[in-house]
Amino acid sequence: MSLRPHFGPCPLPIQHYPQVLMAHGSGGRMMHHLIEQMFLATFGNEQTGHHDAACLDLSHPHIAFTTDSYVVSPIFFPGGDIGRMAIYGTVNDLAMAGARPLYLSLSFILEEGLSMETLWQVVQSIRFAANQAQVAIVTGDTKVVERGKCDGLYINTSGIGSIEHAWDISPASIRAGDAILINGDLGRHAIAIMAQREGLAFETTLESDLAPLARAVLALIEAGVEIHCLRDLTRGGLATALNELAQAAHCLVQLGETIPVSESVAGASEILGLDPLYLANEGRFVAFLPPSQVQRAIAILQAVDPDSTPQQIGVVEADLPPSPPPFWVKMHTPFGGNRILDYRNVDGLPRIC
Amino acid sequence: MSLRPHFGPCPLPIQHYPQVLMAHGSGGRMMHHLIEQMFLATFGNEQTGHHDAACLDLSHPHIAFTTDSYVVSPIFFPGGDIGRMAIYGTVNDLAMAGARPLYLSLSFILEEGLSMETLWQVVQSIRFAANQAQVAIVTGDTKVVERGKCDGLYINTSGIGSIEHAWDISPASIRAGDAILINGDLGRHAIAIMAQREGLAFETTLESDLAPLARAVLALIEAGVEIHCLRDLTRGGLATALNELAQAAHCLVQLGETIPVSESVAGASEILGLDPLYLANEGRFVAFLPPSQVQRAIAILQAVDPDSTPQQIGVVEADLPPSPPPFWVKMHTPFGGNRILDYRNVDGLPRIC
Repeated sequence: MSLRPHFGPCPLPIQHYPQVLMAHGSGGRMMHHLIEQMFLATFGNEQTGHHDAACLDLSHPHIAFTTDSYVVSPIFFPGGDIGRMAIYGTVNDLAMAGARPLYLSLSFILEEGLSMETLWQVVQSIRFAANQAQVAIVTGDTKVVERGKCDGLYINTSGIGSIEHAWDISPASIRAGDAILINGDLGRHAIAIMAQREGLAFETTLESDLAPLARAVLALIEAGVEIHCLRDLTRGGLATALNELAQAAHCLVQLGETIPVSESVAGASEILGLDPLYLANEGRFVAFLPPSQVQRAIAILQAVDPDSTPQQIGVVEADLPPSPPPFWVKMHTPFGGNRILDYRNVDGLPRIC
Repeated sequence: MSLRPHFGPCPLPIQHYPQVLMAHGSGGRMMHHLIEQMFLATFGNEQTGHHDAACLDLSHPHIAFTTDSYVVSPIFFPGGDIGRMAIYGTVNDLAMAGARPLYLSLSFILEEGLSMETLWQVVQSIRFAANQAQVAIVTGDTKVVERGKCDGLYINTSGIGSIEHAWDISPASIRAGDAILINGDLGRHAIAIMAQREGLAFETTLESDLAPLARAVLALIEAGVEIHCLRDLTRGGLATALNELAQAAHCLVQLGETIPVSESVAGASEILGLDPLYLANEGRFVAFLPPSQVQRAIAILQAVDPDSTPQQIGVVEADLPPSPPPFWVKMHTPFGGNRILDYRNVDGLPRIC
């Protein structure tokens, strides 16, 4: 069960302005009320203020910088919402670079007519997630577009994290023989969204795996586990992520026969005609590391999150790929052969993140 | 005349895919082609790569961080387009904090069906503007939403700049007696957009004042001009910006009788029923500084940009405002009295930035 943000009453007089109006984005008094009474009151800290840029003192000059826009539909889904996603998604991109997430920007594109109560719920959810992930929201922006020119709201968050170690955690560090770990089962996020969208009911409620990953990654780094590369398994899922990494590192990836997928995800995927290997996750990542580090890494990941089920799912082959390589990723089948996992041509679920 | 970006041919086979498809956003092969062949080919540098976060080595640990989403309509307007605006707008927010703009993120929300040629023009325009403003685009994101769920494209840019001086350039530094400078005339951006939107024709083509402001600001700082506060005059225009600053600094602002407005803007404002004092600009800013610094500051601004017309437009009054203050900003009228310039209640032009 994921924790739920607590919703206090909306600080704006929503009996008078129950919906977002164009005037909330056009620089006048209503925009000021929205920013001061809702956004600054919720996120204000010593870095934010009456300036369009936050001034920050970094103690580490080596940083990671990332951005993501979130257009997920529906806005609220089992296990999360666009607000938590906008925080955890960006926090996770920083974590995958081996960085400690510190500061986030928060930019809203709001649709005229959006319920102010909905916006307030999203804002509260963002605060909850930022607290959980220990990041400060230090700068922001608000735009309003006419009815029909967006879909409720879109959010962009950009993030800054500090890299406090000397390793190069990137595809360039992947080595032949590396073990490939995963921190849990696949496909929960995509199936939770699809089920909500299509009105499907399963025997048990399937929740998104949406979660912040920085604590797990920083625990590995602080314990001195030698990590070569990290990647979260968002759009395109495990298979696409491994293709990208293998191609960038110019190596072949061999997956084992068994990839962790829950019964509900497996069942729903069959009904919906989807392949869990390509489904988006929001709390799953792979780590490439020397085989000697696998047991310690698994123990650390389990200690940080007792609900996680970290395990090795594959290796980087010793042989270099032929040139041109016919594929980058393959997977053992129960029949003794291999299945090629290529990029999908036309694929993917829209608006999953 | 503003410089125009040069458009080479689109690197994607637009005869096969003349429009943005949902598949360009869903993590498969088409998204990779778009990112690699259009975005990385255009913006790639040593910091970008096959990672979701850019790793940056900062030489100054004191930084400014800002974000803005751009939803301007129409996408192309006299004197600019959404691409240049997305670069200059964020660069200017950094400059107003007294920072040297260094790194930008670039996040697209694209509408299914957007012409690929249009996207390519915007991308080229972004490259042109980033070169002009001497910033590197180091990380990005692409989302695609269904037809009707956005308006062509929206762009978010977030930016990091280095603060290389020890001054506190912020409303807190505003002092009684400060002179208020402006770097040019008001209202060009808003009127250029409105004219385009409403199909109005003026005797001379009125162009947006869209321009990067960092060079001017850094020239002032490097010359040792004592700057107390800076603010660009975007949404809400001069009057709103001065209200925000005066309120934040708890001081009264007195403007002189004459505020620079071109004849075309004055004429168009009269036709459209708009007040240039509240119109958005994209290349104008105010500087608060001691009266002793005014002449040098004007000389430096003119040296940096010979087309600019910097001048003093007002002062910070010696008297503190009464509590509660009935207003923050007033302006001499030709009749010897004062006009109060308050925040506007319901106002502003939608989708101006």
